[in-house]
Amino acid sequence: MGKLMREVAVIGAGMSKFGAFPDKNSRDLFAEALINTLQSIDKNFETKEIEALYLGNYSSDLFEGQGHLAPMCAELAGLTPKPASRTENACASSGIALREAIIAIAAGAFDIVLVGGVEKMTDLPTAGVTDTLASAADRIFEFYAGVTFPGLYALMATARMNKYGTTREDFMRIGIKNHKNGALNPFAQMNKSVAEIMNSKIAKAEKKGLPKPNWKDEMDFLHDLSANPYIAYPMRLFDCSLVTDGAACLVLTTKELAKKYTDTPIYIVGTGQGSETFAVHDRPSLYSLRSAVNAANMAYKMAGVKPKDIQIAEVHDCFTIAEMVAMGDLGLWERDDINRAVREGDTALDGVRPLNTSGGLKSKGHPVGATGVAQAVEIFKQMRGEAEGKRQVKFDVECALTHNVGGSGGSCVVHIYKK
Amino acid sequence: MGKLMREVAVIGAGMSKFGAFPDKNSRDLFAEALINTLQSIDKNFETKEIEALYLGNYSSDLFEGQGHLAPMCAELAGLTPKPASRTENACASSGIALREAIIAIAAGAFDIVLVGGVEKMTDLPTAGVTDTLASAADRIFEFYAGVTFPGLYALMATARMNKYGTTREDFMRIGIKNHKNGALNPFAQMNKSVAEIMNSKIAKAEKKGLPKPNWKDEMDFLHDLSANPYIAYPMRLFDCSLVTDGAACLVLTTKELAKKYTDTPIYIVGTGQGSETFAVHDRPSLYSLRSAVNAANMAYKMAGVKPKDIQIAEVHDCFTIAEMVAMGDLGLWERDDINRAVREGDTALDGVRPLNTSGGLKSKGHPVGATGVAQAVEIFKQMRGEAEGKRQVKFDVECALTHNVGGSGGSCVVHIYKK
Repeated sequence: MGKLMREVAVIGAGMSKFGAFPDKNSRDLFAEALINTLQSIDKNFETKEIEALYLGNYSSDLFEGQGHLAPMCAELAGLTPKPASRTENACASSGIALREAIIAIAAGAFDIVLVGGVEKMTDLPTAGVTDTLASAADRIFEFYAGVTFPGLYALMATARMNKYGTTREDFMRIGIKNHKNGALNPFAQMNKSVAEIMNSKIAKAEKKGLPKPNWKDEMDFLHDLSANPYIAYPMRLFDCSLVTDGAACLVLTTKELAKKYTDTPIYIVGTGQGSETFAVHDRPSLYSLRSAVNAANMAYKMAGVKPKDIQIAEVHDCFTIAEMVAMGDLGLWERDDINRAVREGDTALDGVRPLNTSGGLKSKGHPVGATGVAQAVEIFKQMRGEAEGKRQVKFDVECALTHNVGGSGGSCVVHIYKK
Repeated sequence: MGKLMREVAVIGAGMSKFGAFPDKNSRDLFAEALINTLQSIDKNFETKEIEALYLGNYSSDLFEGQGHLAPMCAELAGLTPKPASRTENACASSGIALREAIIAIAAGAFDIVLVGGVEKMTDLPTAGVTDTLASAADRIFEFYAGVTFPGLYALMATARMNKYGTTREDFMRIGIKNHKNGALNPFAQMNKSVAEIMNSKIAKAEKKGLPKPNWKDEMDFLHDLSANPYIAYPMRLFDCSLVTDGAACLVLTTKELAKKYTDTPIYIVGTGQGSETFAVHDRPSLYSLRSAVNAANMAYKMAGVKPKDIQIAEVHDCFTIAEMVAMGDLGLWERDDINRAVREGDTALDGVRPLNTSGGLKSKGHPVGATGVAQAVEIFKQMRGEAEGKRQVKFDVECALTHNVGGSGGSCVVHIYKK
């Protein structure tokens, strides 16, 4: 196992608007992301130069009754009869599709590859969505025992509370921070801060002539069980990511060819992947995922960078606890320093190392099969200084990271980017 | 797009028994195939030498309500926390997983990789299986119009009948030939020839005191609508592959490392993949798949071999017509010579170029996500002279091919093997 044979660059990146769209299916979402991606390529580029599609999708099978998405999306992109493959690793599906595309270019199989991720989740009722997502955990030994995803991450949250003194307020701080970032992202499903949500609820109550809620601030609002009920203790509504329709795409090529298409390619200098036991109860630790530690180590080693070199990262905050697990697994903070980092705003947009400038899964939304590629889209924009609105970080980003987890941690993929 | 950076060898190959097993789920099937694969490796090998898993599965999501199979199977193989990815391209899922694994070794990502394919299909009632398989076709523009897979392949069959004068008897000949081969394969689901099936029906009728059926021979039996009803004209029961539970695995490594594990590795010298329009009605031809033509051309070019060099092949006979489409798409026979080839036994076990010595999908069985790897298992055994029973071909196989189709042809992957 060594260094990859060829280096890879991103020359284009784009996503659909994330949200709940009753009038759009997977095809519409993919097409929207593809158009935005092609428009992001600076110089002359024709889709016929693309040689293959790598697509991530978790379970259009269960969400839409449609399998075999790769040739369907390849046809939409005008690629027929070129190769098109779908990768499924739960919520890490498109992060791993990205990795497979990088490996294919490195192997010499292709020079120019389209990577996509798509998920259409909102056609099912909430219980159907919960069941479909729970199919990414161990059906026999977890799901049939009554545990679905909020419960599995709740186990990790209480384990961290017990070991490191993390409080419920720490989880809330992550939600508040990611909503604040998402409020600045026009592609985000929830582009409102928690304060804005609170104020609109107050305004609604006043309009209806109801008693004015007595919330002092965002934290007070999140403590109110009527506004922020428990889903699985200690995870409450505002600790959970969203149910989302969306898609995202990237165009990759070799380091050598990249300059033909843009003066500012973003290089992917490290890729790593790992797995963890399928059932949470079989793991040696509940506040760390070996899949993520392995993926991170592999990516750091390939990139020749250290955690301290990472200036911004998109991490997999499917639940607020997951962002804390990521901070430790990636070595970005010592595990016993994470509570402090969250409390003091290390990870805020103006902090020492911003996490989830996009709003993260919490606020940007989490169309599970699209998430991994959408993370890379955010990094591409931030590194090129092209992030829309006020979420562009104020410093020059030379080195960044994406961290994409599947299921309760059974899969994880990490990528490292440089200019 | 060029030659791969490193060459790849198969050092071990095995499959589970194919069949309908109410007491086995995906985990059991994968474990059974894995054990047989590890036992096939000639010299000392430890599973801890495996660096990653590439798994093909069509839709455990719909068949078993279980997604995210890759880390589950990696854990069964003792690979946690190493990388594990699932590929889904309908019935070509594990053929493409094999291709991704080859590419990963070529890229330098890994030196030793486990490839697997698994499908557990028989838990659902027949209508559920038909619906689940139909999800690999175009749900919106085909399935909702009432067309499922037998109907889609029936369209190809009538197109071929119209263009090339293929008869219903030609389709029957393919079924008879593949059943004859499957009767010699202890891993096959249907290890009975059509003659054996006919005779056992005659014996049953006699035992029950019913009038003795008046079938002159196998062809006469297959013409009897009570024995061989139409599923979708001209495709009848004995033209359709089976609903099967099964799994298959391969262990791949580099050309250089292979000799450490066996004196008789089988090299994969060519790999190619293609796509076709999602809906059958959008295609320029109904008796050819551009996905297969593209995959074959890519594989031949990489391998530096011509169709005439291929001595045996496992081709994707999900329906008998599909074997005829494959014969033309792979360039193994001229399209207008295929009827003759089928009639004169070119493709029989003792013919000039045996096809589907395993029994094919028709008789060995078709656990859709396992089929692509199971085809490679058969080639591995045949090339090493290790095919069980009397189905070992009588000549030395220097060059062979596998052809694995997804859906109604939306995906296809071709591999070429040498000693």
